[in-house]
Amino acid sequence: MAEHLSQSELDYPFKLLEYFNGFRVSKVIFSACELGVFDLLLKAQEPISAQHVAQELNCSEDGMERLMDALVGIEILEVETKDGTALYSSSDVANLYLAKGSGKSLHDMIIYQSQTIYPLWNNMADAVREGKNQNEKTFGLPSEDIFKALYRSEEEMLKFMGLMNSSWVLDGHDIVTAFNLSGFQKIVDLGGCTGALAREMAKAWPSSSVTVLDLPQVVEVAQKHFPQEDDAVEFQSGDFFSDEIPPADLYILARIIHDWPEEKCVTLLKKIHDSCRPGGGVLLVEALLFENRRGPVTAQIFSLNMLVQMEGRERPPSEYTRILEKTGFHNVQVCRTGKCYDTILATR
Amino acid sequence: MAEHLSQSELDYPFKLLEYFNGFRVSKVIFSACELGVFDLLLKAQEPISAQHVAQELNCSEDGMERLMDALVGIEILEVETKDGTALYSSSDVANLYLAKGSGKSLHDMIIYQSQTIYPLWNNMADAVREGKNQNEKTFGLPSEDIFKALYRSEEEMLKFMGLMNSSWVLDGHDIVTAFNLSGFQKIVDLGGCTGALAREMAKAWPSSSVTVLDLPQVVEVAQKHFPQEDDAVEFQSGDFFSDEIPPADLYILARIIHDWPEEKCVTLLKKIHDSCRPGGGVLLVEALLFENRRGPVTAQIFSLNMLVQMEGRERPPSEYTRILEKTGFHNVQVCRTGKCYDTILATR
Repeated sequence: MAEHLSQSELDYPFKLLEYFNGFRVSKVIFSACELGVFDLLLKAQEPISAQHVAQELNCSEDGMERLMDALVGIEILEVETKDGTALYSSSDVANLYLAKGSGKSLHDMIIYQSQTIYPLWNNMADAVREGKNQNEKTFGLPSEDIFKALYRSEEEMLKFMGLMNSSWVLDGHDIVTAFNLSGFQKIVDLGGCTGALAREMAKAWPSSSVTVLDLPQVVEVAQKHFPQEDDAVEFQSGDFFSDEIPPADLYILARIIHDWPEEKCVTLLKKIHDSCRPGGGVLLVEALLFENRRGPVTAQIFSLNMLVQMEGRERPPSEYTRILEKTGFHNVQVCRTGKCYDTILATR
Repeated sequence: MAEHLSQSELDYPFKLLEYFNGFRVSKVIFSACELGVFDLLLKAQEPISAQHVAQELNCSEDGMERLMDALVGIEILEVETKDGTALYSSSDVANLYLAKGSGKSLHDMIIYQSQTIYPLWNNMADAVREGKNQNEKTFGLPSEDIFKALYRSEEEMLKFMGLMNSSWVLDGHDIVTAFNLSGFQKIVDLGGCTGALAREMAKAWPSSSVTVLDLPQVVEVAQKHFPQEDDAVEFQSGDFFSDEIPPADLYILARIIHDWPEEKCVTLLKKIHDSCRPGGGVLLVEALLFENRRGPVTAQIFSLNMLVQMEGRERPPSEYTRILEKTGFHNVQVCRTGKCYDTILATR
């Protein structure tokens, strides 16, 4: 693999330079999102000048022109010059994923990545040195009790919940249909946040009843800021570490296990096993590493993200299988979706 | 172009997600460089474990393992598992460009990008809003008098000069051989920093005499920290804005014009024109934008870099031609190297 890269790279390291530019390309998109460029272009419905965009968004014309030109370079926007004026228009991809209004918008995910994850990664070398998260150095937050830090204000909660909410836009459907779950009556999504994944579940398996269990303050914010008419899912307040876990046929743990060190995961899964009805099971949703350590890059990078922000890590299927079997689960089945998040189903 | 991206991206935005991950991939490489991973692997001469690397570099084993796995994922390192232990080795690309010792090392460029440019880009949205550099918000430095800020301490000077020095490793030869410069006797590299490009010039055109002119403190640090036995270039102290410019046949301005607003460039080029010997000329070295605004991405991104850090911008050839002709130069010839930096030659 590395040899494949090496051959042409030895003469001139184009790929390496592209990697060095990676942070700048991210910030080109993130900044345009933060400034509202994609929303304005979608609203405009016709090609407009950088001057126009700058005026509407209270930005410098020079800065906006450079930003939009870079967006053209990475094929997010298009440009045509008419009578000496450059006119920019959005692409379908930007309208669908980068503008705020669309049902598939990744806007909230981008804001979180730009404002929280980007500064955290500036301390990655220290995270590797110390083997622990950099919430304190980056934001002056305690490195223990991560969720207390994440949920330190309603504004911060909203940002984090927006991230979780918008990330199921992409993989949600594949995740809930990876296995035939029609046999499970009562489904509880532990730490289900805004209910986005739970709603995908309810849509795919309409004969089930789906409940989201999350911390009281999360449920409150979810119902206030992410309400849904005729909601197909119910919300229940509770702390799955300290409170009782309600009995159910299937428990979903989507991006929960990766937050915590193994001891805490074992405690949680044992507790789930005890509450699980006969014939029931647990569905883990995580980015699975390959057993040979060679990828996927996304999961490897998520694992570093867990290092710099949380207490957990990403794992290969063999690790999840070992932990699940240790806590009493059987018949561990793995499904790689080919997207960012994969699933593991195990029965009691 | 954007349509090209759109087609498959609408179903699932793989490319977009890769862009979002860009900053993380940059920081994976940067952090490994800062921690000395590539130097250690080169020295080891055989595959070694993450535990071994972590011990030698005073890092956590867990963090180092995740970092090295991500480097495998992006094909910078290789891994083989023997008797249950993962053993990592470097790639030729990493040995050549990322380890410190190699003559082609980009180490200093990476340190500068990681520690200075990455934090600056965190304020890109504000740079676009305000249309000016973010040295103050990022580092508490005055946004005026940029070089005073850049050169605020010997340590900072060294970092910046390391960046300039290592960046000619890649494009230096192509730049100095883009035109036949054998007719120019005395060549002066204005703002030539450590002399790296000037030495390439002297090597390619051995019958010329090449002088580097830079600020006194830069010349001092260049001779102290970047000395060269039997140096083919001479150094001269001076400020090309406020002092006299020595007469010469060819002036090099490599990444100088892009630092400044047009008025200052015009003043400088007029001054150069006055000092230039008959038959002489000026060679500009810059990343050239396309006239149609569609790229190259590298130059577009450099232009945003100028916004967030300096007072200048990147320009297309037509702009340089206009400015050169305005200041009395003729016969403007443009050569795109196909790499990051291009050249423009004009005669008096």
